[in-house]
Amino acid sequence: MSKVKPEIVGIIAEYNPFHNGHLYQLQQVKERFPGAKIVVAMSGNFLQRGEPAAFDKWTRATQALANGADVVLELPVADALQPADRFAFGGVRALAAFGAEVLAFGAEHATYDFMAYARLTQNLTGNFKKYDQAYAASWQEAIAQKIGHEVSSPNDLLGLAYAKANLALGEPLSLYPIRRIKAAYHEEDLYKDQVIASATAIRQAYLAGKLTDLQAYVPKSTFVDLQSQKMLSWADFWPLLRYRLTMARIEDLGQIYGMAEGIEYRLVQQLEQLGPQATFEEWLKAVKNKRFTYTRLSRLATAVLLDLRTEEVKVYQKAPFLRLLGFSQAGQTLLNKVKKNTPYPLVTRVTQKDKQTFLATDYKVGRIYQLLNGRQQDIKRQVIRF
Amino acid sequence: MSKVKPEIVGIIAEYNPFHNGHLYQLQQVKERFPGAKIVVAMSGNFLQRGEPAAFDKWTRATQALANGADVVLELPVADALQPADRFAFGGVRALAAFGAEVLAFGAEHATYDFMAYARLTQNLTGNFKKYDQAYAASWQEAIAQKIGHEVSSPNDLLGLAYAKANLALGEPLSLYPIRRIKAAYHEEDLYKDQVIASATAIRQAYLAGKLTDLQAYVPKSTFVDLQSQKMLSWADFWPLLRYRLTMARIEDLGQIYGMAEGIEYRLVQQLEQLGPQATFEEWLKAVKNKRFTYTRLSRLATAVLLDLRTEEVKVYQKAPFLRLLGFSQAGQTLLNKVKKNTPYPLVTRVTQKDKQTFLATDYKVGRIYQLLNGRQQDIKRQVIRF
Repeated sequence: MSKVKPEIVGIIAEYNPFHNGHLYQLQQVKERFPGAKIVVAMSGNFLQRGEPAAFDKWTRATQALANGADVVLELPVADALQPADRFAFGGVRALAAFGAEVLAFGAEHATYDFMAYARLTQNLTGNFKKYDQAYAASWQEAIAQKIGHEVSSPNDLLGLAYAKANLALGEPLSLYPIRRIKAAYHEEDLYKDQVIASATAIRQAYLAGKLTDLQAYVPKSTFVDLQSQKMLSWADFWPLLRYRLTMARIEDLGQIYGMAEGIEYRLVQQLEQLGPQATFEEWLKAVKNKRFTYTRLSRLATAVLLDLRTEEVKVYQKAPFLRLLGFSQAGQTLLNKVKKNTPYPLVTRVTQKDKQTFLATDYKVGRIYQLLNGRQQDIKRQVIRF
Repeated sequence: MSKVKPEIVGIIAEYNPFHNGHLYQLQQVKERFPGAKIVVAMSGNFLQRGEPAAFDKWTRATQALANGADVVLELPVADALQPADRFAFGGVRALAAFGAEVLAFGAEHATYDFMAYARLTQNLTGNFKKYDQAYAASWQEAIAQKIGHEVSSPNDLLGLAYAKANLALGEPLSLYPIRRIKAAYHEEDLYKDQVIASATAIRQAYLAGKLTDLQAYVPKSTFVDLQSQKMLSWADFWPLLRYRLTMARIEDLGQIYGMAEGIEYRLVQQLEQLGPQATFEEWLKAVKNKRFTYTRLSRLATAVLLDLRTEEVKVYQKAPFLRLLGFSQAGQTLLNKVKKNTPYPLVTRVTQKDKQTFLATDYKVGRIYQLLNGRQQDIKRQVIRF
């Protein structure tokens, strides 16, 4: 299935935050591919499901490097803030461009032949404009018919998305699924007797003030961050989004990436009806309907917060780039070898010109995030040498 | 000078917050014009000098009604957020439209013949686009030449602005200057042995946590508000403005009322250079130069916060309206008489149609203010019957 001795193994991740499950995955990769370097393509300051990252990209990249990653690349916002298929495509493209030969990923069913499933379902592309519930259900039914059984667990579905992206890109990567253990993705309680809990459970416990309980579930580097930094969530950015929705001209909202079917009117009207005390969750619940799922709306809300326009996403997708956040000593050797040969520019520091041109969108996104965490995100930041 | 028995005396005010000096002024008017009704044209939730009001317009209108005002009208934002000349024009126009015959105002020199000074200086209009320091100085010198002495105290200058507005409107009002006592306008310390302190001094003391000290300087109604409500300032709105400046498209900022000479680039660049920890004052100080005074920039900052566009101000000025906030029992009799005869519409409640048409700007402004104070400002608010 996978190349026996790859030099570079890739992982697509969000590390929100980095926990023992992520550590386990890196250890599995090192055991299976001794001597290989691990390159991670990681979401930046805003995540795939449409929410601010708990810690900024530098903190999360450092957590990864402290626990076995050799190179961390940032997935630009136009790749990260996407439905699973497009998120997968951006991740696979970045890893392939960096020279990865294997993609390792967690799956509920690591024995599935994801590439075979991808080939069986490659004509099931669906309508990218529609991400409503009915569409999701009928899509899963179509997959089941093609493959012969359901593929419905969240990480299996993401694995299938990786496989399809890989297929579309000419199969630059071999896939190496790793069986996920112990914690379910959506789990929100800690299992007292287990050392792995989901990122969601960890964030919930943190917000509930149970910081010391978390020591068992995260590597030391993450625990230090949990103690010293404020974890951010939608609650922190909601006052800004609420202001934006109150102040915005409706025609400007219409230019936001992902805005469709006049939903911008609903976003504004529901907030107005709920009044000034509404929370983010109350607002999203009021806006939600059959055609707009919670996750799709969360992404849309993030795009509004960031003023991410359709045009900006198009510009990036026509000319993608790789953004380096950090590397280990072993990663440095790899970088020296790779950096001249990437098919897209590899950005190692942000210049004044960059932030006015191709990096303008990610630079803006970083500045919005830093309004809440108070730390420069791009200018004046050195790549992490771990 | 003033009509001997006017039925309606007008006052232009901000009441930020209402204090003993304001009470003294109302008492002086009642003493001088027994039986007259007092109509106040008051700034709404954002003030002439470019700052959020300490308390919302309903709270401040109630303070005025509790202390002797009979009718309180709101000066729409397009009248309030203006240099002194235009602010004065909006106030005089509103009072005249409501049928006021006298305008009472505080002045450092109540013996000045303001209308005579207005006639002497009526051709000194200056360039409205220029409000820099050099302009202010040369304007004052020109006034002094025409009149024969300086007119330089802040309330005298405002009185002159009222007189000029009155002249421009065909002198609908007689002017009644009242000598201001005891507290200087810009004073920032409380005088322990005096019962009058400036609004600025009161806000400073409040922010310094000296709430109980304030009991001597404000009427009871204001003191109750000081105890029960959070006073708002730029510090509260700065996170929103900072976000707006971080997220905004530069071409949108160019449409903001008062934006000139490409200052929008400077607003954005200085914030970027100061970094994510800068305060409102630090930012304004960094932006300030000879051509843009602190007050002009504060107004501009408010216009950015409110997304107040040049076009919106034009629309209002072509079709102004009167907005009723509240009235006393005596005020009600007056209202019944006046309301059918005002030359502009008198808005007593905000309908769904109003907020989408001529009231759209003020409605938006109210919603932005209520993001911070949590109280509906327009829809669902009844006019105050005191």
